[in-house]
Amino acid sequence: MEITEFKKVVDNYDVVFFDAFGVLKNSSGMIPHIEKTFEYLIRKKIDFYILTNDASKGPKSLAQSYIDAGFTMINEEKIISSGMLAREYLRMKVKDGKVAYLGTKQSAHYLEETGLKALSIADLDLNKIDDVNALVFLDDEGFDWREDLNKLVNLLRLRNIPVMVANTDKSYPVSDRMVAIAVGSIADMVENITGRKFIKFGKPDSSMFIFAYEHTLSTREIDKERVLMVGDTLFTDIIGGNKFGIDTALVLTGNTLKEHYEERIKAMGIIPDFVCPSAVVY
Amino acid sequence: MEITEFKKVVDNYDVVFFDAFGVLKNSSGMIPHIEKTFEYLIRKKIDFYILTNDASKGPKSLAQSYIDAGFTMINEEKIISSGMLAREYLRMKVKDGKVAYLGTKQSAHYLEETGLKALSIADLDLNKIDDVNALVFLDDEGFDWREDLNKLVNLLRLRNIPVMVANTDKSYPVSDRMVAIAVGSIADMVENITGRKFIKFGKPDSSMFIFAYEHTLSTREIDKERVLMVGDTLFTDIIGGNKFGIDTALVLTGNTLKEHYEERIKAMGIIPDFVCPSAVVY
Amino acid sequence: MEITEFKKVVDNYDVVFFDAFGVLKNSSGMIPHIEKTFEYLIRKKIDFYILTNDASKGPKSLAQSYIDAGFTMINEEKIISSGMLAREYLRMKVKDGKVAYLGTKQSAHYLEETGLKALSIADLDLNKIDDVNALVFLDDEGFDWREDLNKLVNLLRLRNIPVMVANTDKSYPVSDRMVAIAVGSIADMVENITGRKFIKFGKPDSSMFIFAYEHTLSTREIDKERVLMVGDTLFTDIIGGNKFGIDTALVLTGNTLKEHYEERIKAMGIIPDFVCPSAVVY
Amino acid sequence: MEITEFKKVVDNYDVVFFDAFGVLKNSSGMIPHIEKTFEYLIRKKIDFYILTNDASKGPKSLAQSYIDAGFTMINEEKIISSGMLAREYLRMKVKDGKVAYLGTKQSAHYLEETGLKALSIADLDLNKIDDVNALVFLDDEGFDWREDLNKLVNLLRLRNIPVMVANTDKSYPVSDRMVAIAVGSIADMVENITGRKFIKFGKPDSSMFIFAYEHTLSTREIDKERVLMVGDTLFTDIIGGNKFGIDTALVLTGNTLKEHYEERIKAMGIIPDFVCPSAVVY
Repeated sequence: MEITEFKKVVDNYDVVFFDAFGVLKNSSGMIPHIEKTFEYLIRKKIDFYILTNDASKGPKSLAQSYIDAGFTMINEEKIISSGMLAREYLRMKVKDGKVAYLGTKQSAHYLEETGLKALSIADLDLNKIDDVNALVFLDDEGFDWREDLNKLVNLLRLRNIPVMVANTDKSYPVSDRMVAIAVGSIADMVENITGRKFIKFGKPDSSMFIFAYEHTLSTREIDKERVLMVGDTLFTDIIGGNKFGIDTALVLTGNTLKEHYEERIKAMGIIPDFVCPSAVVY
Repeated sequence: MEITEFKKVVDNYDVVFFDAFGVLKNSSGMIPHIEKTFEYLIRKKIDFYILTNDASKGPKSLAQSYIDAGFTMINEEKIISSGMLAREYLRMKVKDGKVAYLGTKQSAHYLEETGLKALSIADLDLNKIDDVNALVFLDDEGFDWREDLNKLVNLLRLRNIPVMVANTDKSYPVSDRMVAIAVGSIADMVENITGRKFIKFGKPDSSMFIFAYEHTLSTREIDKERVLMVGDTLFTDIIGGNKFGIDTALVLTGNTLKEHYEERIKAMGIIPDFVCPSAVVY
Repeated sequence: MEITEFKKVVDNYDVVFFDAFGVLKNSSGMIPHIEKTFEYLIRKKIDFYILTNDASKGPKSLAQSYIDAGFTMINEEKIISSGMLAREYLRMKVKDGKVAYLGTKQSAHYLEETGLKALSIADLDLNKIDDVNALVFLDDEGFDWREDLNKLVNLLRLRNIPVMVANTDKSYPVSDRMVAIAVGSIADMVENITGRKFIKFGKPDSSMFIFAYEHTLSTREIDKERVLMVGDTLFTDIIGGNKFGIDTALVLTGNTLKEHYEERIKAMGIIPDFVCPSAVVY
Repeated sequence: MEITEFKKVVDNYDVVFFDAFGVLKNSSGMIPHIEKTFEYLIRKKIDFYILTNDASKGPKSLAQSYIDAGFTMINEEKIISSGMLAREYLRMKVKDGKVAYLGTKQSAHYLEETGLKALSIADLDLNKIDDVNALVFLDDEGFDWREDLNKLVNLLRLRNIPVMVANTDKSYPVSDRMVAIAVGSIADMVENITGRKFIKFGKPDSSMFIFAYEHTLSTREIDKERVLMVGDTLFTDIIGGNKFGIDTALVLTGNTLKEHYEERIKAMGIIPDFVCPSAVVY
């Protein structure tokens, strides 16, 4: 499968969905020259959104990190995160009471918008759990792992409540050599201990793409054929876009490297419409 | 959670999605009096579709089984099956060559519509596989299990091609006491032997709901809030509808029984908007 | 399957292997009247050993907890723990360097006996890992979960070394209502993140039974037919004993309750030779 | 880890356990010159046994295939197979009735020795199953896959009986390019459909090594330090031998190749005492 410059690809679409990590940024910061891509998209009136499995912050905070890096065009309207999907699910299905969460106060942003009272596992008293009606895994920070994960396991033994996982990633890079355990791995451990089935959000599940597409539709009329998904990971970004029925471009700046992409595309049978060296428009 | 008559529920919607097995029919035939439901829906101008993981026949044949049972209102336009999703994926991603399939000639109906040449595993010659560009699991009949499953495993060792599973069910009832192994279980076994990742279609994956909703949109303007999903299985029908963002009704004529539904809803945290004794309108 | 008094069963054996938790003690302390069993065994010259998956302490400390409860006959010679198996494996396979461990200083007792230098993950510096030649999961205490588990994951990315899990239990009871996450669950999470295969010790793996039997042989001549395994859990104690080829007795004071034992024995097909209300000799 | 000639290794032992496939033979027949090894062992009075997960034939038939290839020294006394372990388990735990099996009549050899009546799944009538007290997976031949696997699944829904798997291999080579689905994969599929836990025999489970060692002890006094396990697969032969506490030699004529062995030993942490180019003594 041949490699095409991203500029040639993107010219054929009206809306672009970008994965964040491995496409726009990596553990060293923003991908060099990626600002040119956004300048080009704006000039060409191509709309864009960022689809991320990061539920550790609200869209405002997520956007701020781009703005701080000089990308003022990436405001909170441009961010679609798996945390929003968990929020919508709660809004529809949990009518009252408290929602316990694992994560920082900042990550609880999503929950407060539902009208439910958000309660950090760190502040939970196991003797007062009668009105705890849901639990959400948001982030790997903001709590004492040993004390609060044990508390969480016992909460689930004492209360039959829905459990949502807003980020299913297993680990995330913190430098070019080091990774950190992501909240998705913690959720898998608790699911395994308790024998429960959790409700999981985020790519490759199609709901992320539906949510983004409906969000797009609320601002403009658009056909699915005019939407492109750009990602670095075959088993989340590309299969998710393929199954949702939009075109997909694999970039080689993250999880999938130039030396392996052909073999991995074949082996997994997850076939992007395009392969580009990066998402940079030169 | 209290039980509501289906009539009171359905009156509030413009479109209803029904699961087939355990809702409209069971191993003895159609659910008694379910014809009244369709008469009522037509009288009230409530639209309906049947969403099924059955990929063993094309929509025409699936509809015929309803027509033969006297349900002339269930024509092929009303059937949305996971086989259609596999067909769309093939249409988009596999441009030429042959698509091998496991199933009956009848099940290959889906594949022929893509313009690709469909080739039963039973007819495949392992010495002539250079133009086999995809494989689809459709049905548990139409081939010699021992000979052809061994052939299929070797095909996947020799060719790196995308593999689709059009029905992820593990087993299906053939009488009130007996089940049969479904093609989803066969696919899991082959995935395990070959170490490959297959692309799976069917509930609870949201793509089934997107496809049905887009199909509905092609005939009428409709808001998601006016759509109801009716199913008997929490982990496919109800979670799928919930994540897609439509209302859901659990009926107690199939996998989830009256004596267990409250416990199972709590334990799984998959909460339908309504629980009804059946999908029959009295 | 009928229930037999433990006294009638035990009279036919020369050596008894006891599981600890659910057989001799529970979260409230020693099982009432279990001291009579040990008095009886000593009077009848029936030898006994305790086979435990608890690797959090050395045999001396494990024995001390029995001695403190007034069971002076349970000295360290009577304790066979999965930690000992990990120690033997290290002794045979890791010739030099340091062995990193997850657990308390007390749990590291096993490692120091190998002649290797034991190094707590809490004290490990990721910049000085060239001589770290093995890693052992021993206990869920003695380290900072967040900081040290992240360190451990990165250690395994940087060093290809054997990893041993000395306790494969997922959780353990801390009161009649509450459980705690066991080190086996933590090990499963890390295995899942790193994609490595760990070497696991403890029941139901036969190596625990071999080790106990060989230990017994070192003190007296004994035929396997004269050895009885007593446990509360079908899938560890009873299947382990059955596969090792010794007789097994299930007691109903722990994981397997009187109201379910017949159904569970049938469903799992793990058939003890005897079922006893408890291991108490009246 | 350096490579040592097998002759230098084997000189230090009194008994050698050989894996069969990948060590003594491959899909083309016996490994060239491997007869020299047996001549040498006999001359040096080093005893030997073949430990195999092949339960498709009794030891007599397994031995005959060696004798037919000119290896008259490999008689049935030298063969230890996982089928024997299943037989011993049945002998101890199933006292009467019939034992159903999946496999050829030839594979049922093991079952008849227990005194139980062996009944092929192919001959089973689902209306007459009240005296069927166990089920054993022996071989992938000797039955109609579609008809008889469906029958088997329903047998397990109707009868709560112990299920044994005498060969846990997933596939086996039939030529240098082709494999066949092994009975272990079929058993995994049925376990998954029925939600049951099967009792599994064969390497790497220690019971195979115990059985072989006890068999050896019945003919001569021998210390475990004088026993060597020779195999081509780290995750069955080598880890099994290591955990049993005997020395292990990895040979590079089967699953583990010369170009990968160092990396795989490190990655898995399963460390043989020796690595040899083959088991041939030159």
